[in-house]
Amino acid sequence: MHEVAVKEGLLAHNDEAAHHNREHFIEHGVYVINIMSAPGAGKTTLLERTVDAFKRDYKVAVIEGDLQTNQDAERIAKHGVPALQINTGGACHLDARMIHDALDHLPLAGLDLLVIENVGNLVCPAEFDLGEHDKVMLLSVTEGHDKPRKYPLMFHVARAMVLNKVDLLPYTDFDVAKATRDAKAYNLDLDVIQVSARTGAGLENWLTWLKARMARVKAR
Amino acid sequence: MHEVAVKEGLLAHNDEAAHHNREHFIEHGVYVINIMSAPGAGKTTLLERTVDAFKRDYKVAVIEGDLQTNQDAERIAKHGVPALQINTGGACHLDARMIHDALDHLPLAGLDLLVIENVGNLVCPAEFDLGEHDKVMLLSVTEGHDKPRKYPLMFHVARAMVLNKVDLLPYTDFDVAKATRDAKAYNLDLDVIQVSARTGAGLENWLTWLKARMARVKAR
Repeated sequence: MHEVAVKEGLLAHNDEAAHHNREHFIEHGVYVINIMSAPGAGKTTLLERTVDAFKRDYKVAVIEGDLQTNQDAERIAKHGVPALQINTGGACHLDARMIHDALDHLPLAGLDLLVIENVGNLVCPAEFDLGEHDKVMLLSVTEGHDKPRKYPLMFHVARAMVLNKVDLLPYTDFDVAKATRDAKAYNLDLDVIQVSARTGAGLENWLTWLKARMARVKAR
Repeated sequence: MHEVAVKEGLLAHNDEAAHHNREHFIEHGVYVINIMSAPGAGKTTLLERTVDAFKRDYKVAVIEGDLQTNQDAERIAKHGVPALQINTGGACHLDARMIHDALDHLPLAGLDLLVIENVGNLVCPAEFDLGEHDKVMLLSVTEGHDKPRKYPLMFHVARAMVLNKVDLLPYTDFDVAKATRDAKAYNLDLDVIQVSARTGAGLENWLTWLKARMARVKAR
């Protein structure tokens, strides 16, 4: 029961902080996504590709969430955009307060896109609104097509499911149609995008999706 | 602090019950919407129109939420579809457990559309997932265009904003463009539909929207 009580307290405070973050994002006209996945699904690699493709035309910044290392922020910083690392000190997800504090060190003015890379985990991150415009869930095909049925909340809250590592599809029994059907059962609006962040296959579809979402923010 | 603690407990239990409801809805292929608005915005009138338009081609049922009367369910039942009243006993919103219990008395098998009419309130209902596919918020133009900025969560969680009583637009200073712009700031995917449930103006746009969302459930 104690764990439940702690979680409930976190959730209530979180919603308030998420609301504040959202107001900041709206005020500055910056489009914000929260990328979530299991560990090793390829979030940082997809982000490196995205930063390289966007940094000439858009002002991009990245917040990296991790238990305790700075490795991911260092990887992103090498690509020439601001990257801020949040160490959760063991917590299995980012929360809105952590993002709120991070914004003190990351000016939003002039920014077009802020990407938040969450802690690798298919459960807790789905429960915490960070104030982002869109949650994006990355599912690598090597993880298996049973994930939507096993982690329904993640697929319910995501706006897009990026199927990563599709270059490995021939070597797995991953059923794209089944994963798509099961995920969409929880989410009538889920967009599904197939990529290989490593080979670059399908990357254009992901970048086009992102640009379309950014345009909705700018259209205001 | 006591009120906060009670609310937190409700929210945690609610998410679990909402998940169960969602699994039931998916299993039976029934599309479920949760209609929310301030008191007197015209939810029941819109529903009467919707039931009349749909009852020949679709199997429709309605769950009515109210503090203590059966009036709304009686109004709907006169239109020849099953209508079940939930009295919240003073609570300002429906929760997922109430819906779960109601399903014992409302067979989902064969149903195409289940409409849940929430308690008239712009705050609490937005916080409680009922397991529905879509939340729909009804804003009558006589309430004023400042509502999205004042009740942001409601507009953040809704899939569609139905602007009702548009026949009265010439007699108010309601700014449709401003209300739309402010609401979409909180929600990149918000669809906006103008109707007069009383005169029937624009009703086709609402019915077309509903049919398109139902089709997404059936497409599975």
